[in-house]
Amino acid sequence: MSPSIAHQTLRLAHDLPLDSGQLLPRPTVAYETLGTLDADRSNAILICHALTGDQYVGTDHPLTGKPGWWTRMVGPGRPIDPARHFIICSNVIGGCMGSEGPASPHPEDGKPWGLRFPVVTIADMVRAQAGLIDALGIDTLLAVVGGSMGGMQALQWATSYPQRVRSVLAIATAARHSAQNIAFHEVGRQAIMADPKWKAGAYAPGNGPANGLAVARMAAHITYLSEEGLTAKFGRHLQQGTEKRFGFDADFQVESYLRHQGMSFVDRFDANAYLYITRALDYFDLAEGYGGKLADAFAATRARFCVISFDSDWLYPTAEARRIVQALVAAGRHASFVELASPFGHDAFLLDTPGLNDVIDGFLKAVEQNA
Amino acid sequence: MSPSIAHQTLRLAHDLPLDSGQLLPRPTVAYETLGTLDADRSNAILICHALTGDQYVGTDHPLTGKPGWWTRMVGPGRPIDPARHFIICSNVIGGCMGSEGPASPHPEDGKPWGLRFPVVTIADMVRAQAGLIDALGIDTLLAVVGGSMGGMQALQWATSYPQRVRSVLAIATAARHSAQNIAFHEVGRQAIMADPKWKAGAYAPGNGPANGLAVARMAAHITYLSEEGLTAKFGRHLQQGTEKRFGFDADFQVESYLRHQGMSFVDRFDANAYLYITRALDYFDLAEGYGGKLADAFAATRARFCVISFDSDWLYPTAEARRIVQALVAAGRHASFVELASPFGHDAFLLDTPGLNDVIDGFLKAVEQNA
Repeated sequence: MSPSIAHQTLRLAHDLPLDSGQLLPRPTVAYETLGTLDADRSNAILICHALTGDQYVGTDHPLTGKPGWWTRMVGPGRPIDPARHFIICSNVIGGCMGSEGPASPHPEDGKPWGLRFPVVTIADMVRAQAGLIDALGIDTLLAVVGGSMGGMQALQWATSYPQRVRSVLAIATAARHSAQNIAFHEVGRQAIMADPKWKAGAYAPGNGPANGLAVARMAAHITYLSEEGLTAKFGRHLQQGTEKRFGFDADFQVESYLRHQGMSFVDRFDANAYLYITRALDYFDLAEGYGGKLADAFAATRARFCVISFDSDWLYPTAEARRIVQALVAAGRHASFVELASPFGHDAFLLDTPGLNDVIDGFLKAVEQNA
Repeated sequence: MSPSIAHQTLRLAHDLPLDSGQLLPRPTVAYETLGTLDADRSNAILICHALTGDQYVGTDHPLTGKPGWWTRMVGPGRPIDPARHFIICSNVIGGCMGSEGPASPHPEDGKPWGLRFPVVTIADMVRAQAGLIDALGIDTLLAVVGGSMGGMQALQWATSYPQRVRSVLAIATAARHSAQNIAFHEVGRQAIMADPKWKAGAYAPGNGPANGLAVARMAAHITYLSEEGLTAKFGRHLQQGTEKRFGFDADFQVESYLRHQGMSFVDRFDANAYLYITRALDYFDLAEGYGGKLADAFAATRARFCVISFDSDWLYPTAEARRIVQALVAAGRHASFVELASPFGHDAFLLDTPGLNDVIDGFLKAVEQNA
């Protein structure tokens, strides 16, 4: 975690009211934009990132040096194309890539917020994004697009700002977190909080609970992949030939892979931010404010929807997508539903999945032509 | 972990050769027996326990005071009945309830073995059980019965001692650990090894890596339950009414439940034993010694088999049971295959699952009548 990176940021002109009842004083929102807003301000697409994602959707990541996290989808000649669209992606509130979060300096003492940072929700993240969209002079979004937690934000947009969204693309997502989803997140949080270096959230920057965070990431990472995908990629292959080493080093390739996932994650992510964002996900239940009736959450919007699931995704399985679509249709919305075949599990939305780009391209062009 | 409990034990008269090539010097095996061996020594049933189980299958557990772990199946009037059967259950080698394991005193210096204990396999566990069976004067077992890791031992018995087993009941199990199985275990091991109190396995008894072990147990516990079962039992219910507390205490009931599972586990289990037993499971691949041809692992045995799976078990799903049965039939064995409906996931073999007792009762009686 390097705090020295200069992100593109906006400081909201107003305090942000939160679902908890607290006010977040004039938070900073970090973002990137690609392309140009057209004269009638009708070509803006907001992309919402997943748990460990960030605003670097289409440009190289300043910490890892790797390409943006969705360059398969975003870029010249891609379905979301800066030649045609004004693309916005912002780091979520509670995150750690420049938006106000637990690692940000507290406005009063300049020390990291730590656990003094208020618990935020998906709706709070969306409220901060609306502040950014306002500041960019955009009234209505052509589309809000996201996978996983990004899909939850996209759905939340249609509920929170029903008049400001012309279309929603919700991918590999759910309208609420299940008990199993919560359980996995709780394991990750407990792994972080069990690490003595966590210090009740008051660790010094750069000296946080790296071991606990790595374990949390490893547990979560398994849920992003399918059993079939893991078998195809690693099976029971050993690291070194065919001889078991009868020890506790990474003997199987899948162990080595997971350890690498854990260790590389801690270089780019803040442990407290992981706590806050998983908490926001667990609290997510779009129907909660509507007496449990999901269709009512979509009563006010006129947006068109495209809901996409992947057959090997067991984190947010197709059954959850079906539930969303059922509610949308019951609410009288136009809702396309596509289940794609992929061996990659939940991560399929980030990978090379046949059909995904065509579906998103076709949906967005249809929305644009109906303008 | 109290080392002061007096278990019923046998010290093997010989050193135990291990798959790793090492010799375990005259290990101790802790066990319990129920019922009486009949005159022709033909009514002995060996029950093999799962990862965190032990020999207390039918009598109260000396640490927790709770009834034996399988009193639904074992006891008067139950399918495995001390009035009819001589029932043997032993703690696995590498375990922590009296059998030789990493918490046992090293024969040379009397201090805990710790990581000096050799890595053992499922076949090694079975080899130690055979030593116990020998000492009890039993040549042939009426049945070897087990769920989960116990089922792996039961299958291994038919391979390692093909002439000494008349029947095998393998429940909720697999003939090899999958990449996903290994991955989950690796998360647990990393959680333990990330705890500073682990001290490379050289912690003092009673002062081990409790936090790491609790996290390991929490992660594993999720895999023992089905998504549907978790939803039915906990859903998104909060601990206190309907008001979210916007914090990191256990707010959802499922969080509180998982934390309890983690914390109560550390009172009865040794962290190093958890490392060793998960490693044994990961190394399990019954076909490995037969050029990957599982049927060949069953070529020598004349045992009858009953393989049982549960439709909501995603740890060792029905597909794995099918693979076992296919190999058994290809090897010319009589193999009954039953998939039972249960909402309880992998744990169904320990719980009140309709049909389970009838199936086991019918299978065992048929084996006995064919004597």
